[in-house]
Amino acid sequence: MVKRKSLKGDYCPSARSLDAIGDWWSLLIVRDAFDGLTRFGEFQKSLGIAKNILSARLRTLIEKGILETAPAPGGAHQEYHLTEKGRALFPVMVALRHWGERYLFAPDEKRSVLVDRRSGQRVSRLEIRTEEGHLVDPDEAVIIKVPETAES
Amino acid sequence: MVKRKSLKGDYCPSARSLDAIGDWWSLLIVRDAFDGLTRFGEFQKSLGIAKNILSARLRTLIEKGILETAPAPGGAHQEYHLTEKGRALFPVMVALRHWGERYLFAPDEKRSVLVDRRSGQRVSRLEIRTEEGHLVDPDEAVIIKVPETAES
Repeated sequence: MVKRKSLKGDYCPSARSLDAIGDWWSLLIVRDAFDGLTRFGEFQKSLGIAKNILSARLRTLIEKGILETAPAPGGAHQEYHLTEKGRALFPVMVALRHWGERYLFAPDEKRSVLVDRRSGQRVSRLEIRTEEGHLVDPDEAVIIKVPETAES
Repeated sequence: MVKRKSLKGDYCPSARSLDAIGDWWSLLIVRDAFDGLTRFGEFQKSLGIAKNILSARLRTLIEKGILETAPAPGGAHQEYHLTEKGRALFPVMVALRHWGERYLFAPDEKRSVLVDRRSGQRVSRLEIRTEEGHLVDPDEAVIIKVPETAES
């Protein structure tokens, strides 16, 4: 694995998020957790990865406060659940899903669909808006950086 | 690097997106491209990675249709620009940024801020809504899978 510069102290929140989530496997575990999977064996079957890698990823997600463990009803197993911080990754998952739907599927290709349980309606495309509600085009968004000389 | 199962043929658009983007480095390159960086040396300085790794990631992003190259004005250099498909990753970046702002920074900690160029206003939190406009809670969203027996 490529040794990365840690981005933990980066002033950019996106970079810190990427650092905290760790890698794609971790985000696929999060996706499965949103999808209702809770057991080690379920994640393993879904992702098709080695047990030791899955164990390490689950441990990291727990350390980062994204997952938490709880005894299964009945008690023989341990279950993994998303914490509030983990559930807050929902917009990231939705944004990845919409991008994939748009660019990585043929128009008539079968795909899983994200819907609202109560109404059965599809989740609509994410819109980026300012606090006053105006749509923001990517070309119109700028990142105001923390000056290099900033005292902290 | 851990050998991954390819998710290219997965019915889940999120999984395909993760597969297409490749890894965190790639998404950090995309972030820098949104931030206006265009040259190899600029990406290298920003990310602090080895030239061969950066080259490989840039090549992959071009193959995936996320970046494209163009001669720099003047002509001595080559520039990297986001394609339409690349710019469409904007909501993913915004979602990661908001999550980071919320969970990975102390309340008074300095951080870069994403604003709308014209109005100077901050980009507001992403909301997940149904097609009819109702807010969707993560606990209320379900993924309707493609049946295993689906003909395609």
